[in-house]
This record gives sequence, structure tokens and C-alpha cells, in this order.
Amino acid sequence: MGEIDGFVHRIRVRYADCDMQGVVFNANYFAYIDDAMDMWLQHALGQEYLDGFDYAVKKAGMEWASPARMREVVELRPTVTRWGRTSFDVRIGLSVGDRVVGEGELVLVSITPGGYEPSPVPERVRRALGEASSLMSR
Amino acid sequence: MGEIDGFVHRIRVRYADCDMQGVVFNANYFAYIDDAMDMWLQHALGQEYLDGFDYAVKKAGMEWASPARMREVVELRPTVTRWGRTSFDVRIGLSVGDRVVGEGELVLVSITPGGYEPSPVPERVRRALGEASSLMSR
Amino acid sequence: MGEIDGFVHRIRVRYADCDMQGVVFNANYFAYIDDAMDMWLQHALGQEYLDGFDYAVKKAGMEWASPARMREVVELRPTVTRWGRTSFDVRIGLSVGDRVVGEGELVLVSITPGGYEPSPVPERVRRALGEASSLMSR
Amino acid sequence: MGEIDGFVHRIRVRYADCDMQGVVFNANYFAYIDDAMDMWLQHALGQEYLDGFDYAVKKAGMEWASPARMREVVELRPTVTRWGRTSFDVRIGLSVGDRVVGEGELVLVSITPGGYEPSPVPERVRRALGEASSLMSR
Repeated sequence: MGEIDGFVHRIRVRYADCDMQGVVFNANYFAYIDDAMDMWLQHALGQEYLDGFDYAVKKAGMEWASPARMREVVELRPTVTRWGRTSFDVRIGLSVGDRVVGEGELVLVSITPGGYEPSPVPERVRRALGEASSLMSR
Repeated sequence: MGEIDGFVHRIRVRYADCDMQGVVFNANYFAYIDDAMDMWLQHALGQEYLDGFDYAVKKAGMEWASPARMREVVELRPTVTRWGRTSFDVRIGLSVGDRVVGEGELVLVSITPGGYEPSPVPERVRRALGEASSLMSR
Repeated sequence: MGEIDGFVHRIRVRYADCDMQGVVFNANYFAYIDDAMDMWLQHALGQEYLDGFDYAVKKAGMEWASPARMREVVELRPTVTRWGRTSFDVRIGLSVGDRVVGEGELVLVSITPGGYEPSPVPERVRRALGEASSLMSR
Repeated sequence: MGEIDGFVHRIRVRYADCDMQGVVFNANYFAYIDDAMDMWLQHALGQEYLDGFDYAVKKAGMEWASPARMREVVELRPTVTRWGRTSFDVRIGLSVGDRVVGEGELVLVSITPGGYEPSPVPERVRRALGEASSLMSR
């Protein structure tokens, strides 16, 4: 049995991220997910990944299992769950240690840089993220 | 044909809400939706609506049709789309003038104030939001 | 006894603005001040005030007298306190009803739009904000 | 010549931190500074530093020398510049590599936990931060 491996992005919860209930404010999880996507794309494609490629968020969703709190380190694990011609879906698992925090889902549309026209997902993106994802689900 | 009426919450887009692409950053729509929920509950139940009632967000999602930009006024129109025993779903339409910006969805769980135990949705909440919602869908 | 008059920008405190201590998080006051500046410039110069003029924040400061809390309406009253050739200072009073929340201070630099070169404050800006300010201090 | 040493907190600039001008939004620097303070106090006093001690921000200010941009790593270096009986001042240098981004200043008031009464700065806080600061200014 091989090791389960894959890209993990870690975010330490700051005081400013938490709300009056003492937990991360719901909208801030989407900012965490946004940052995880950027770091994942950099990791898989290099820092200049936006050269000739850009994407827009068509849908975003999250379901919570437990709240994250100040100083906890949230681990975000993205994987591609669907490839379309001009769009793809990403699922992001969020956890703190062994505790599941929740699961996010994004529908991303490949667009021409500087515009909002959908365009085919570049092969290099598909390959780089696809390989990263297959590592996750081994 | 009757008039379509119902609760509308308006949020003017601030400079700080927008990102490097010049549009409202995706996570900020969830903060807008959160604010619309608070204002709607106040409107329907009075400012002290949290007296004996609280809720947690179990799921949140949003699908975009177009971006909102600085100084535009986003109109948010919430309606209840499902009543469960301890939870309920809310759909929120977002628009700028005649232009659809997108649609949000929340699954909210009624909880005991100060804790995280699910508890039956109080009848007064059900009635107040239900009536507000039926006005919307006439 | 003249009337004390002048521009007032009002911001209702949202749930998301507050931190674990139940008060507006300190950094968020600077976002409030930023929004007040934008609204004041629009009020004094028209919505297209950035046509041929832009500014950068060189310094920002705030001293607190009392915290603002959820649902309170913070009133922000900006006035110019110094005119330089390429920069000017603005003082912003913050209050909730009769209660003083604090006072903010900005040093703003007039820059060429699209660049970061300091440039003389346009006469129309000087006149429009100066008049607005003199109304305040009568 | 001794080594210049001291506490440094590093924050990578996220996409969400930047505004329409492509630089970190001014209010967000105060959130960075807030996080640096928390990390510094943890570093100097241990994670439970709020046990019997709390503080409120009385004044906050920042002067900018250059903007920070997406993906840059901002280094924050706090030092105590004044000790009062119930308050103390902290100066925070911000830089990206060799480039100075600016300097922040805080006036912090020691308060009784759970209240807003000023109370003497505990000796252990004074000692821990003072030593950390003296290392900086050698």
C-alpha cells in the first residue's frame, strides 16, 4: 500500500479571522480556499502560471463539519474532481489535525487573461493538476 | 398578476470589497449574504431575534452570473426554500439593477443559544420567515 | 450662532466587522475611514473625481475613545486640517450617537493617475474639500 | 559588533489582501500588525500569555514607504519603545527583503481580562518583551 500523498496548504487561523462566536467567520473559509488554489497552481505550474491562463470562479460551496478556531492550523487539500472543456471542478478537504472541518467545492472556468471569455483549459494545466490530483486518490 | 414584493437588503460595494481584477472578491459575497440574513431576521422578528434562538451555517454556496463592481448597489433577496425540523434552507438572489449577479444558498441549523446543539426551529421564526418568503413567491 | 454642518458618512457595523471581543476589529476602522474618504470625495467632487486625480495614503492613524459594536451606526466626519502642495491631511471624527468612538488622521499624497508620482493637488480638489471643511469648523 | 537579532514575523501577501490598485489595501497592514503582536507575545510569553493579562489598542498608526504586493513576504519586527505603568508603545518595522515597506506604531493599554479597566503591565510581560526589544536595538 502506497503512501497517500498530495498537495497540502496550511493556514494558521488569525485573531482577525474569527467572529463574535469565537470561530472562523464563514466567509473567511472561502478566502482560505482561494489562497489554497493559488498556492496549488503555483506548486503545480510554477509561479508564472497565469501566463496565458486565467480562471474565474463560477460556483463556490462549503459544508462544515466543525468550526476552526484561533491559532489552529487548517490544512486544505485540493483535488480536481471533473475536467470539462472550458471548466473544471475542484474539491477541497479542510481539516485541523485529525478533525474534519469541512469540504469545499469550486467550479472554475478557464478564461482568456484580461477578459471574461471562456477558453479551453490549457493542456499543461490539465496535466499538472491532474497528476497532482491522482497522487491524492491513490 | 400581483406585485412581486418581499424583503430586499441593499449593499453598496466598497473599494475594499474589490480585488485586483476590479470586481468584488468571491469570499466577500458570503459576507454580504451573512449581513442580509441578519437584516432579514431583524426585519421579520425584531432586533432581539436571538433571544432564545440562534443558528449556525451548515452549508453555503453561491453561483455567479456576473461580477459586481465598486459603487454598484447589490440587492439581496432571501427566501426560505425548505423547512426541516431543526434546519431550513434559504435562497438569496443577488442583482444589481436588472442584472443578475448570482444566487446564494444556505443550509441553516437552529441551535440552542450559547451551544452547538441542534434544536427545533422556533415556531415564531418559521412563521415570520415563512410569511416573508411567501410574499416573495406570489 | 451658525449651524454646525458638514459631510457625514454613516456605516452600520456588521457582524463580520466584529472580533472575538465583540467589538469592531481595529483594522476595520481604517476600512471605514477609507470608505468615508471615497464617499466624501464623491460628494464634494462628483462620482468622476478620479478623472485626472488620484491619491495614495502616506500615513494613517487612529486613537480610540470607546469601541463600536454590532448594529451601531458609526458616523464619520472628515475635514481637511492641512493643505500642502502635493499632500494634505484629513482628520476624521468617529462617533455613535453622542458617544465619541475616536479620531482618525490621514496624510494623503496627490498622485498622477496610474502612477505613484506626487503631483500638485488640483485646484478643484482643494476648493471642493476646503469648502466642505470650512463648513465644519465655523 | 554583536549580532542584530530579534523577533520577526513573516506574512505572505495573499490575493485577497490586495486591492484594485494591485497592492495590499491600507487597512490590511493593521491586521498584519495585529497578527505580529499576537505571535510576538506568544513567542515571548508562551501560548497562554492571556492568562491574567489582556490588552486593548489605544492608538494605531502606520506610515508607508512603499507598497507590498501579492506573494511578497512582509517581515514585521516589533519592539517596545516606551513602558508606562498601565500602557506601553510598540514600533513595528515592515519590510520586504531589503525594501522598507513602512513603520507602524501602537499604544497598548494593559487591561483586566474580560473588562476594560486599565491595570499595571504585569512584570512578566515587561520583562519578556523588554528583553526581546533590547536584543533588537543593541
